[in-house]
Amino acid sequence: MFGLRMAVRRVWQDWGPWVPFSCNSFLGLSSYYSTIAEATDDLTGNGKRREKILTLQSMNPQVKAVEYAVRGPIVLKAGEIEKELQNGIKKPFNEVIKANIGDAHAMGQQPITFLRQVVALCTFPELLDSPNFPQDAKRRAVRILQGCGGQSLGSYSASQGVDCIREDVAHYIERRDGGIPADPNNIYLTTGASEGIMSILKILVSGEGKSRTGIMIPIPQYPLYSAAISELDAIQVNYYLDEENCWALDVAELQRAVYNAKEYCNPKVLCIINPGNPTGQVQSRQCIEEVIHFAWEEGLFLLADEVYQDNVYSESCQFHSFKKVLYEMGPEYSNNVELASFHSTSKGYMGECGYRGGYMEVVNLHPDITAQFIKMLSVHLCPPVSGQAAMDVVVNPPKPEEESYQQFIREKECVLSNLARKAKLTESLFNEVPGIKCNPLQGAMYAFPRIFIPPSAVEKAKDHQMAPDMFYCMRLLEETGICVVPGSGFGQKEGTYHFRMTILPPEEKLKILLQKVKTFHMKFLKEYS
Amino acid sequence: MFGLRMAVRRVWQDWGPWVPFSCNSFLGLSSYYSTIAEATDDLTGNGKRREKILTLQSMNPQVKAVEYAVRGPIVLKAGEIEKELQNGIKKPFNEVIKANIGDAHAMGQQPITFLRQVVALCTFPELLDSPNFPQDAKRRAVRILQGCGGQSLGSYSASQGVDCIREDVAHYIERRDGGIPADPNNIYLTTGASEGIMSILKILVSGEGKSRTGIMIPIPQYPLYSAAISELDAIQVNYYLDEENCWALDVAELQRAVYNAKEYCNPKVLCIINPGNPTGQVQSRQCIEEVIHFAWEEGLFLLADEVYQDNVYSESCQFHSFKKVLYEMGPEYSNNVELASFHSTSKGYMGECGYRGGYMEVVNLHPDITAQFIKMLSVHLCPPVSGQAAMDVVVNPPKPEEESYQQFIREKECVLSNLARKAKLTESLFNEVPGIKCNPLQGAMYAFPRIFIPPSAVEKAKDHQMAPDMFYCMRLLEETGICVVPGSGFGQKEGTYHFRMTILPPEEKLKILLQKVKTFHMKFLKEYS
Repeated sequence: MFGLRMAVRRVWQDWGPWVPFSCNSFLGLSSYYSTIAEATDDLTGNGKRREKILTLQSMNPQVKAVEYAVRGPIVLKAGEIEKELQNGIKKPFNEVIKANIGDAHAMGQQPITFLRQVVALCTFPELLDSPNFPQDAKRRAVRILQGCGGQSLGSYSASQGVDCIREDVAHYIERRDGGIPADPNNIYLTTGASEGIMSILKILVSGEGKSRTGIMIPIPQYPLYSAAISELDAIQVNYYLDEENCWALDVAELQRAVYNAKEYCNPKVLCIINPGNPTGQVQSRQCIEEVIHFAWEEGLFLLADEVYQDNVYSESCQFHSFKKVLYEMGPEYSNNVELASFHSTSKGYMGECGYRGGYMEVVNLHPDITAQFIKMLSVHLCPPVSGQAAMDVVVNPPKPEEESYQQFIREKECVLSNLARKAKLTESLFNEVPGIKCNPLQGAMYAFPRIFIPPSAVEKAKDHQMAPDMFYCMRLLEETGICVVPGSGFGQKEGTYHFRMTILPPEEKLKILLQKVKTFHMKFLKEYS
Repeated sequence: MFGLRMAVRRVWQDWGPWVPFSCNSFLGLSSYYSTIAEATDDLTGNGKRREKILTLQSMNPQVKAVEYAVRGPIVLKAGEIEKELQNGIKKPFNEVIKANIGDAHAMGQQPITFLRQVVALCTFPELLDSPNFPQDAKRRAVRILQGCGGQSLGSYSASQGVDCIREDVAHYIERRDGGIPADPNNIYLTTGASEGIMSILKILVSGEGKSRTGIMIPIPQYPLYSAAISELDAIQVNYYLDEENCWALDVAELQRAVYNAKEYCNPKVLCIINPGNPTGQVQSRQCIEEVIHFAWEEGLFLLADEVYQDNVYSESCQFHSFKKVLYEMGPEYSNNVELASFHSTSKGYMGECGYRGGYMEVVNLHPDITAQFIKMLSVHLCPPVSGQAAMDVVVNPPKPEEESYQQFIREKECVLSNLARKAKLTESLFNEVPGIKCNPLQGAMYAFPRIFIPPSAVEKAKDHQMAPDMFYCMRLLEETGICVVPGSGFGQKEGTYHFRMTILPPEEKLKILLQKVKTFHMKFLKEYS
């Protein structure tokens, strides 16, 4: 049994620093462990066990180094508690609320009718004869199918994506950016934004030792970035967002970071997330201009993660695309700065995560690299064509004169106004709690409140070999069923603690959830004061 | 202009050895070049050009080394010719036939009705109330939706895939393998088979210098493998299939290959493609047993690419899964040999490439690695859920007592019997041509005939800096509009030449196509004799 426990420990130790070994009964990871136990017993049975070829020792060390908290141990734990509830085990709550991930439909948000109509028509074209589908949806479906080989979603598309969908993306960008031109040849449809970000980073990484590519990312960050950097064996260069100033990005901090990084790597890429994830800030136009100027001066390839471009709630804020600001800064910038920007079907008002739709626009790519990039993408054949169709509807929604317009706008505004209300609600309720401080949720779909963790709780967490905010979040999950992600999974200033929580649950549920967090927090403070 | 031409040359030189620089007007790559020219002019305009950050010199050298012939320069050329035809430019043919890729629907194959009904119902659940959809399709859609968060295809699934779909996959494998058990926990849904193969290879690669992971692949191979090996900076270890013996796999050749490879790397993985791509052979049960024994003895992790498992045409052949044979060999093997096997929605009788659906089954994975693997997958969130739904229909088709059964079986058998007829037709017509020799197409969906290229044509190709079979295929494309992939893109024995052609075009078209290849070949032989 000791050997088994050790094996289990190794699994988790390599996953991350915060995982509960010495407290597994307290934290109830028992059923996950027993699954492993069975597997291990099976392997050791019959005296027939041989050394495995693929082990923690022999595996790809870059993959071993990857951490991805959004689906990390706390989410596995939440899944386990869910199964316990299903099996009738009593808990102080009736359901697990997975507020760890921006998964709108899973939280009950309804799909946009028009989007699903178009994709259903593309899927089963016999429906084009049905009187129950509107003409504008049929027109879009016919157009998409005409762009597909054999007029079928089942054909491979070009690796860059279906031509007419890339044209629609380019028109969308032009409308969004007040007429600044977008070239369909610069558009690449992707398998969600994640795969686009991964692929452009992959082609960017090179060098050894001090010349190894450095990739600048915000702290706190969305952990896709740190995971991709680990996998690619690149160098992570942190720049810190200013929590005291609504998580603003300060160019002086970028300068500090790049200056230090040049000591040990070759900083080549600057990643920006706007609106911020997990931090929810919306960058001002002025700030974007400064960042672009900085990238131009320092010779950095810019990555603008703009998947939350439709999710802006504060009346004082507005979304500005990096592409637009770049072109407004004049040809010295717009002819030179290499910029890749990303969008997705997963967020916004549509929340179609499961379709894995997305696009990137890349400007000023060297033509040699365009050919190399398409070659690299072609190995994966193409992004899912149904996801491309979903992306098409996002960039080409019903027009005011079309029959589906009214319903579309009603559904879209319902989702966005709900989110805006919940953003305000969350901020104000968190700020009522002593020991919780939450910046305004200007955009995106998360709160990232700072939490005070008493020194004796920090000590207790150390005993459990956990990061203090992981300890806090595990306790929150155990006692309330609420699953949030510790700030340590995103990065934070030394000695500060946070968690990320989506604001996607329906309003009434969100109120209860926030109330539960408050009660838990007060109890936690009392317990460890 | 000279500088521009040089830049263009560099694009292609890094792509592969066979690309036509000195013959670009002959080969008509002009419009692709002019696109590049415009981009380059734009960059050099206004005296504002700066050095790019991302260039052939600074890019990821592993990505630069990738080659992927199936979508390589010959396919770009075919696309260009298509555009020329659309623009009214006269050619000795009216259409380009893309026989380079196994893309069934693009060749006019119709989707399986039941599959599309289920996916359409999942996409737009209001259709569950429609009397025009059969009950068995509705039952499957309801079951899939119940497995999705918020009962929506728009939610993220678990990174391993939707639970109930993984259960259906496990049941399918059990039925296929005569009752040998399959565990849903060993099933991972993937974004097509390609992404599954990439991800398992990614976790397997480690070491430096002589201890770097060696990956054994067949020659000829499907170039996904060589591309993945380049990207991962692993060592490609070739074993040659025996063309004289219907492309059989000989274990003595595996032994030769592994023995040699140990001089310069650590051979750790053995990849098998069965039925073969591009070679179409179907492995005998005896041969599979020998391969498994070899892997067991040599300590190799087995990858079985079985995406053509439904595509077996020769009456003397039968598909045997590696999983089944492994378990029939007894616990010494079945408890030890680490095996990942792959299937896909893209091939078989359904040909749903665009959905990017697939699964892998992994047995005997170390439990530590299971956790690491799921962590790695979770960074990409999940495979497209509509592709997972399509995969579900493939593994859970209508049962004899269900109302859609008759139509389903009719459609399925129509596709497969057509393919079987076309496989025979292709083999016999090719073998009528002097200087072409084609092994029986036992399975999969390609012919890979050996072609005699006269020495003076080989010389001519050298003048054009092209592989001789690339030269041949480019000429074939120029003169007939038929796009096939040169054998050099798959690997072949030194001094032999081949091409890969799908047998997917409709029978009447395929006959014309084969006749055109014959006429071209005779003319080519005459020209260079």
